[in-house]
Amino acid sequence: MNRNVMITCALTGAGDTVGRSEHVPVTPEQIAESGIAAARAGATIVHIHVRDPETGQGSRKVAYYREVVERIRASDVDVIINTTAGMGGDLVLDPHDPTTFLEGTDLVSGVDRLPHVEELLPDICTLDCGSLNFGEGSLVYVSTPDMLREGAKKIQELGVRCEMEIFDTGHLWFAQQLVAEGLIDEPAMYQLCMGIPYGAPADPGTLAAMVNQLPEGAVWASFALGPMQMPWVAQSILLGGHVRVGLEDNLYLRKGVKATNAQLVEQARTIVEAMGAHVATPDEGREILRLKARS
Amino acid sequence: MNRNVMITCALTGAGDTVGRSEHVPVTPEQIAESGIAAARAGATIVHIHVRDPETGQGSRKVAYYREVVERIRASDVDVIINTTAGMGGDLVLDPHDPTTFLEGTDLVSGVDRLPHVEELLPDICTLDCGSLNFGEGSLVYVSTPDMLREGAKKIQELGVRCEMEIFDTGHLWFAQQLVAEGLIDEPAMYQLCMGIPYGAPADPGTLAAMVNQLPEGAVWASFALGPMQMPWVAQSILLGGHVRVGLEDNLYLRKGVKATNAQLVEQARTIVEAMGAHVATPDEGREILRLKARS
Amino acid sequence: MNRNVMITCALTGAGDTVGRSEHVPVTPEQIAESGIAAARAGATIVHIHVRDPETGQGSRKVAYYREVVERIRASDVDVIINTTAGMGGDLVLDPHDPTTFLEGTDLVSGVDRLPHVEELLPDICTLDCGSLNFGEGSLVYVSTPDMLREGAKKIQELGVRCEMEIFDTGHLWFAQQLVAEGLIDEPAMYQLCMGIPYGAPADPGTLAAMVNQLPEGAVWASFALGPMQMPWVAQSILLGGHVRVGLEDNLYLRKGVKATNAQLVEQARTIVEAMGAHVATPDEGREILRLKARS
Amino acid sequence: MNRNVMITCALTGAGDTVGRSEHVPVTPEQIAESGIAAARAGATIVHIHVRDPETGQGSRKVAYYREVVERIRASDVDVIINTTAGMGGDLVLDPHDPTTFLEGTDLVSGVDRLPHVEELLPDICTLDCGSLNFGEGSLVYVSTPDMLREGAKKIQELGVRCEMEIFDTGHLWFAQQLVAEGLIDEPAMYQLCMGIPYGAPADPGTLAAMVNQLPEGAVWASFALGPMQMPWVAQSILLGGHVRVGLEDNLYLRKGVKATNAQLVEQARTIVEAMGAHVATPDEGREILRLKARS
Repeated sequence: MNRNVMITCALTGAGDTVGRSEHVPVTPEQIAESGIAAARAGATIVHIHVRDPETGQGSRKVAYYREVVERIRASDVDVIINTTAGMGGDLVLDPHDPTTFLEGTDLVSGVDRLPHVEELLPDICTLDCGSLNFGEGSLVYVSTPDMLREGAKKIQELGVRCEMEIFDTGHLWFAQQLVAEGLIDEPAMYQLCMGIPYGAPADPGTLAAMVNQLPEGAVWASFALGPMQMPWVAQSILLGGHVRVGLEDNLYLRKGVKATNAQLVEQARTIVEAMGAHVATPDEGREILRLKARS
Repeated sequence: MNRNVMITCALTGAGDTVGRSEHVPVTPEQIAESGIAAARAGATIVHIHVRDPETGQGSRKVAYYREVVERIRASDVDVIINTTAGMGGDLVLDPHDPTTFLEGTDLVSGVDRLPHVEELLPDICTLDCGSLNFGEGSLVYVSTPDMLREGAKKIQELGVRCEMEIFDTGHLWFAQQLVAEGLIDEPAMYQLCMGIPYGAPADPGTLAAMVNQLPEGAVWASFALGPMQMPWVAQSILLGGHVRVGLEDNLYLRKGVKATNAQLVEQARTIVEAMGAHVATPDEGREILRLKARS
Repeated sequence: MNRNVMITCALTGAGDTVGRSEHVPVTPEQIAESGIAAARAGATIVHIHVRDPETGQGSRKVAYYREVVERIRASDVDVIINTTAGMGGDLVLDPHDPTTFLEGTDLVSGVDRLPHVEELLPDICTLDCGSLNFGEGSLVYVSTPDMLREGAKKIQELGVRCEMEIFDTGHLWFAQQLVAEGLIDEPAMYQLCMGIPYGAPADPGTLAAMVNQLPEGAVWASFALGPMQMPWVAQSILLGGHVRVGLEDNLYLRKGVKATNAQLVEQARTIVEAMGAHVATPDEGREILRLKARS
Repeated sequence: MNRNVMITCALTGAGDTVGRSEHVPVTPEQIAESGIAAARAGATIVHIHVRDPETGQGSRKVAYYREVVERIRASDVDVIINTTAGMGGDLVLDPHDPTTFLEGTDLVSGVDRLPHVEELLPDICTLDCGSLNFGEGSLVYVSTPDMLREGAKKIQELGVRCEMEIFDTGHLWFAQQLVAEGLIDEPAMYQLCMGIPYGAPADPGTLAAMVNQLPEGAVWASFALGPMQMPWVAQSILLGGHVRVGLEDNLYLRKGVKATNAQLVEQARTIVEAMGAHVATPDEGREILRLKARS
């Protein structure tokens, strides 16, 4: 357990959480400030979504990403920047007439999910490695092999590290296929996302089965939603992985107590350190991920 | 290992296999004959898809199902009849303009996948418990929670046993949700489908993780594709499950030797018996599944 | 994770640790004081060995146990008392002439390991469910089926809860045999001891395999030695178990910093609470273990 | 599954089985003949114990081993020869006075278990990597770290391949320690012995946990006792291992039908081939194990 563990803080996500906690950052300025606070609390990486400041809904607008990233880069804290590239995969079907799309659909090609990555060149961006039902109702998250190969190739050309988000065991299979095809630069980086209905559950045996299939030397992290967020920090460390916390995945510090991103990072740090491991600094994270030094 | 193992024979499927083996049955008569031969070879259950006799493509036409089922029922062999209800979930996207559907799309509501079940009242029909990428390209198999709840309710009303097909761990999670909501009659019946890209891989650890999550007393089977079909017969038995073989999932008896359905059933029977277990007769299968006696 | 976790503090053990940390309690008074401090820090249960105050070596002398237990019972803290009954199983062989016993041998019958239990009637006593090599050299820990059945029967007659210590998967098999034979009262209580050479390693997969074999409703805990002590607190909680820390198993709070028992309990409590669980009070522990109320 | 699987036939063992099946070979001639028949049936390796022809009890007498090995070598079949070196570890205690040894005790040093290996130089000999309770009663099988290191060193000096027999997870830990200390030549060869009370149970999860801990490229096999013998052939193949059958471990071909060694090998071959794998010839086995060519 004497090793460096990277803490990613997922600052806000795109979920319908704005009205459920006053701590969920909405405007680019709030998101940047929350990220800076998380970094001060020990986050190695911040994972960034943006929201429409008017509606609070998730957005793909480059200008919002630009403001968040520039504010963080201009601050006096050091942190590795990871922007999502998962937005633009939402297909909402009418269950009784499923070739009709409903409101909420936001579905674009693999490359069209990447303009902010191309402009801002974050250290890392994500790639969601498959399709699945996302929650109840009739929302399908769509990322097909064709889209994913094009997206991966573009990310590789941009020189950005690709974090492959894995929502179920079939996504891991496809991620390994991307690696085998040379579309992912070394070190391959896997984020095993657990407990998101209806992807892989936050079940220790399921995680172990996935980790056993990872290639030797892979860099991987795992997180789980809601009340399993903190137990999963321990679970990931036990199996040799890195960790992720933050308001994207969980709103509570403990039952009944709403958290800030910085508080969630602090609690993760408590677990990391009580288990005898160390929180990786951003520079240590850059070494693990073979990222360019901070400019 | 001293137990009864049900062998399901999946006769033809809907895959693009007709040109790849002369043994793949295409017309209703061929499918029925192949099922009758499989039953004589020891199959407890036949799992039935139908195909357009002209094109060989998978079909949802009730008349074809009717002919297959009537021929089998009129024969002198006893076998439990399981018809697919998974057809009608195919969405083929243009990866560069993904809200445009391409040829190959065949996407209907949960209830619209069931007219042959309503008319023919097979012993069992399937329910594919989620969405996922199906193979390479941009084909998404779509079955959303809304669609699935409606389909499950209809199957329950018809008094048909519902075999929940599970293509990844998130589908299992949703299947358990259906059970919890009372939409699946006892005994809940799970088919763990492994090795279909890009669902759960044919990996022993992944199967074990799924089986560990099944409720006590669940009736489950598992199969794997291609050359893993026969090893997976052994794998399922070892973990307490039933088995499935057949040309839907694998065309070869051994390397270079094309199989008939009956030969695949015989080979499965060889493994079942060499491991000290017994192949369940259709009547023993009816007891396990609490089906009505043969009329 | 919203559940009560019992923390056992194993105060001193019988290992050769006295010279390696000034915090290892040796005299009955020191052991009692260390136990009282551990209870104040949150320990639900104290697990007690005694040592010869002159030599620091582990001892089976009833008078030492009596003093420790009486001091704790007379104190103003509440804690569940668990005395070892594992002493008296040491066989040290001459490897070149192995029917010759060497110094260090202390091997008595199952019942002869229990006089202090009979006299002091602790809430719990241990039963080490098998034989194995204990460390390097030629020390075999010996507990045969015949001895164990006699010991279990005696413990049952005394009305003391039996904690079955499991050092490898074969010991778990035998423990289940004891339960099946009616020699263990409900609830059966298992302590899965990991990382003691050459028993089961502190490996998550090995623990998961053991836990998967436990009967529904079993009360179990697990611990690991040395630097794995704190990670294993998290590991046990994740799989639904209780936890054990203390100087018997680990001398360090973190690298280079020697711990007291109370500090180890505090650190375990930190992990339990950061993961969203609660430390069971002694009264809550009595309920879980169906022990008599404190007199 | 397209790989070569070595079948070991364990011809007779030392268990109390002579009166329980007329097929258990007893005299050196019978053991040799049974081994020759097993080889003709497809065994890649024969694993040899010898028995006292008068009493049927297991023996360590070199003359018996010599006769068995010479007869097999003089025959016209090719087979890899593996002699046990596990005899001489039996300690039978009086449970009420456990420093008194009872009849049945046969306990000698690590090197004193090897004279037949030194004289006959078989291709392979075994090394039982730890101590454990062996069956009910008070029989402890004793193999301490000191004894094992001396035995391993001697086997290495003789140029014989060492098959490390693993009866529980702690034995595997010690085996890996032997490898780390350079006492085992490459390729390290592990035999995972399951279902022998009270060692590791014949449980798929336990085997998977052990296999996950083996080093990349290790050559391993696994077997299980009694009615689990044939299922375990399939289990080992599924996880990438080799297999062992034979009258040492199981007397029945199926319920109520007593087997010969050759019949058990044939049944194992049936499973291997039905799963799509191949039975390794002795020459293919020599390549896998990097043994010298047959002289």
